[in-house]
Amino acid sequence: MPDKQMTIQRASRPGGESGARPIMLAIAGDSAAGKTTLTKGIVEALGHERITSICVDDYHRYDREERRSLPFTPLHPDCNYIEVMAQHLQLLARGEPILKPVYNHADGTLGRPVLVEPREFVIVEGLFPLYSKLARACFEATVYLDPPEPIRHAWKVRRDTQKRGYTEAQVLADLEKREPESAEFIRPQRAQADIVVRFSPIKERGEADTDPPSATVLLRPTISHPDLSNIVDDDMRHAMHLKLQRDDDGKPVDALHIHAYAEREDTRKVEEAIWDELDTHDALPESLGIVDGERSEPLALTQLILLYHLIQAKGA
Amino acid sequence: MPDKQMTIQRASRPGGESGARPIMLAIAGDSAAGKTTLTKGIVEALGHERITSICVDDYHRYDREERRSLPFTPLHPDCNYIEVMAQHLQLLARGEPILKPVYNHADGTLGRPVLVEPREFVIVEGLFPLYSKLARACFEATVYLDPPEPIRHAWKVRRDTQKRGYTEAQVLADLEKREPESAEFIRPQRAQADIVVRFSPIKERGEADTDPPSATVLLRPTISHPDLSNIVDDDMRHAMHLKLQRDDDGKPVDALHIHAYAEREDTRKVEEAIWDELDTHDALPESLGIVDGERSEPLALTQLILLYHLIQAKGA
Repeated sequence: MPDKQMTIQRASRPGGESGARPIMLAIAGDSAAGKTTLTKGIVEALGHERITSICVDDYHRYDREERRSLPFTPLHPDCNYIEVMAQHLQLLARGEPILKPVYNHADGTLGRPVLVEPREFVIVEGLFPLYSKLARACFEATVYLDPPEPIRHAWKVRRDTQKRGYTEAQVLADLEKREPESAEFIRPQRAQADIVVRFSPIKERGEADTDPPSATVLLRPTISHPDLSNIVDDDMRHAMHLKLQRDDDGKPVDALHIHAYAEREDTRKVEEAIWDELDTHDALPESLGIVDGERSEPLALTQLILLYHLIQAKGA
Repeated sequence: MPDKQMTIQRASRPGGESGARPIMLAIAGDSAAGKTTLTKGIVEALGHERITSICVDDYHRYDREERRSLPFTPLHPDCNYIEVMAQHLQLLARGEPILKPVYNHADGTLGRPVLVEPREFVIVEGLFPLYSKLARACFEATVYLDPPEPIRHAWKVRRDTQKRGYTEAQVLADLEKREPESAEFIRPQRAQADIVVRFSPIKERGEADTDPPSATVLLRPTISHPDLSNIVDDDMRHAMHLKLQRDDDGKPVDALHIHAYAEREDTRKVEEAIWDELDTHDALPESLGIVDGERSEPLALTQLILLYHLIQAKGA
């Protein structure tokens, strides 16, 4: 039961063989689910000197050329050094450096590895960080990004045509090819996360696909979240609301809905209340919620909740 | 004291988190000291399906181009991911796979890493496997290759001009540049080895530099060697002899001298006697001692002693 050993070893923080152990957050999700956008604001809020962020999609076993003759896509565990990924997560969780492989998305080649040393905090984003029990045991908090598939497809087309040199037809064909493996290997990680985030227009509220996305943040009682029940009250119902509900599997969750049109002054109140729960002398970071140069209140508040978990775990 | 922990953990073999732990042998020495030649015969004797061999010179931190503007040579620990090397040795010693970096000697670039899974036995050769206490704690037996410097220089000129695209003048300039770091970082590992091997003409016996080399094998009492005192007797004095002596530091060692002109029938007797000490059903391997297509009795016997340690540790 090595995952149990990992959990026990990490419970006796701080100080492993090589000194203090970092606080680790996982952000899992399918390709173009918004992992990098979510990560970016948290990294900027804490500062690059305090946080290490890595993408575990670098653990591809084959380069783009080799994959052409293989029967699976990068969403298949066999297409990745999945055990080495878990091994490296354990090393980071123990405060040790890793020599991380590098996959160049621009041209699909595997390059020379880089040294990654864990700072106070480590964010691990990618397709598979919640895939195995042992990998999950390395994290203080785990997130799964769960946008509706049509929206994720649109995001992927935009990104891969603009930044990775694919045509739209290629991306759409790729999405179709990946679908069975996404269903089999990626989406089951949703059930393993402490927090499930869905950026999407909320149709029940009359929001259209073209509107800036609202957020639904499912807060599972697997970790201790900030107490929002007194903060998110009826007065700010038009900006956000908290609802006790059952998840797809029937288990109870708190669902925080944050509307895209939420006013800064409303979210500000909630942010301050969450921040006050933390025993920190740092000021509430101003850098949250930025996407394409604009501030998104749903993104800002989601990032703040994740930041809360990092800072709270650090103090614990 | 992580080296002590490593030693203790390994003492409780077999069965780590991921199954059986391999028997590990280190072969350290400066560039062109003969590490690959020594390793090759052992790998062939055991068979590629039973033994993994890696070169830890792949842990270079910089490629050839980057090193041009740096004040040190690859013999400086700062020019290498020396902590990651030790970390990977620990992982292998625990029976876990590693994603090993790759340095291309042909063009001096760093490439994509490769997965290395430890088999029953692991040979680790390179410049630094005995550099740290933690690295040394990973091995059942450790060897340092110690040819006289003029002979090593000649070997390095031959290899680097024939196989690595350098001119003779470049190799000689490089050797001069490396000398201070060789003295400071590489040669001190000699004191840490269980076995020190010197391939060289033995001048006291009238052998010339151009003759095929004899071997002097220092057997330190840090591990339990085959009992040679009854095997290597006066009858075979012209082929080999064993001498109790003091090493440079005054500590007692057994020195086994094996002459290049030793007869196959004499070494055969010694080989069989060593082999009989092992509780093994395998036949005495015939593949030992081959260098450039010819059999060298000193090399064969040296390889057999190392093989003895691997097989003996496996049964222990």
